[in-house]
Amino acid sequence: MENKSLNKHISGQFNAELEDIRNRVLAMGGLVERQLEESLDALASLDAELAQKVIDGDHRVNGMEVSIDEECTRIIAKRQPAASDLRLIITIGKTITDLERIGDACVRIAKAALDKRLNNQQPLLVSIENMGRHATRTLHATLDALARMDADNALELHKEDAKLDKEYEGIIRQLMTYMMEDPRSIPAVLDVLWAARAVERVGDRCKNICEYIIFFVKGKDVRHTSYEDMEKDLNM
Amino acid sequence: MENKSLNKHISGQFNAELEDIRNRVLAMGGLVERQLEESLDALASLDAELAQKVIDGDHRVNGMEVSIDEECTRIIAKRQPAASDLRLIITIGKTITDLERIGDACVRIAKAALDKRLNNQQPLLVSIENMGRHATRTLHATLDALARMDADNALELHKEDAKLDKEYEGIIRQLMTYMMEDPRSIPAVLDVLWAARAVERVGDRCKNICEYIIFFVKGKDVRHTSYEDMEKDLNM
Repeated sequence: MENKSLNKHISGQFNAELEDIRNRVLAMGGLVERQLEESLDALASLDAELAQKVIDGDHRVNGMEVSIDEECTRIIAKRQPAASDLRLIITIGKTITDLERIGDACVRIAKAALDKRLNNQQPLLVSIENMGRHATRTLHATLDALARMDADNALELHKEDAKLDKEYEGIIRQLMTYMMEDPRSIPAVLDVLWAARAVERVGDRCKNICEYIIFFVKGKDVRHTSYEDMEKDLNM
Repeated sequence: MENKSLNKHISGQFNAELEDIRNRVLAMGGLVERQLEESLDALASLDAELAQKVIDGDHRVNGMEVSIDEECTRIIAKRQPAASDLRLIITIGKTITDLERIGDACVRIAKAALDKRLNNQQPLLVSIENMGRHATRTLHATLDALARMDADNALELHKEDAKLDKEYEGIIRQLMTYMMEDPRSIPAVLDVLWAARAVERVGDRCKNICEYIIFFVKGKDVRHTSYEDMEKDLNM
């Protein structure tokens, strides 16, 4: 995140605290990104060991959410921030909730990777892997936009969610056809379906984070707003 | 919510502001509860008109989230609250996010009610209706606990989510069997499955709100904590 909003502080200690939580939220983002990559790797190769590693790692994501959230509350109580400092803390407080939910999505994907019945369903895993890589790139770019508090990028990224939704709809149709052709495959295919849904949710969460970035930079809440209205409002 | 935490304020205006946002979050809860009831009614009787009413009503839920959220930020910036006042505002800020997501779940349920193919699948709708009524009762009781900031009740209600999860698993198994026996039903059954999933998510959201209530009353973050640890921690 840019330092311009921080420079004006008289209190060096307050600066250090804001710097600390923004570093911590980026570290949490990095961890979640790794969890997403590994859960998708685990599903693509049905690697039970890697899947278990992702599932076991989720408690670290949860722990980071709770500790950053506590720190945000402590800073608000102690420093009584206003304007962009307050918006920064609120942005971080909301972002960590979405990062934690992306962590849950990774667990869901990893759990599908533990389903031994999928050994016979390799072709099904290809399209979800492609969609998963798209979601990973979106998350990576979203975290970049967060690191630089780049509202223009956030607005661009906001559109990725609609693309991911389209990919998801395609996968659901494909899985549906597959189940109708081979009803015995239904239990295994449902696991793929839950994983696909989890990947689609990653896109929703990234979209939320992009909205918080725009809120921080522009001081305007753009949730539940269409892309066109958002662009108009922000004069971009 | 009890008034004891409010009584100590010298500023009558600040009191009025806190009173106002707690009334608004309860009004939002009432609206979401009605949306949930009507979406379930619409699905049980495949009433397309009622379903459309729920879908059209979602923007009101979204609007309430944004306006309450803005008011929370404004109060933090203007009043610089500490201790239980700050916890109240944080509790409300988190609660409205979950209420808004319950609103989204209602839209998902209402959309299933628009699926004409479900006319031939009435038996499938009975078990989801039962689960839905359970979720509605849980939401109603959660909003009651929120109105009275009752941590004991919140801790009790926290257990309902596990029961709803069990009901959900039963429904998924039932739907899976149904699809395997009659593959032509798959597209319609998937709509029921998404609706069941949405109902299950309502339970997750209620559990979150219960955790915020405990956070407000006890000043302790109990997210990602087991019921046993929570009970021990809180000495209940």
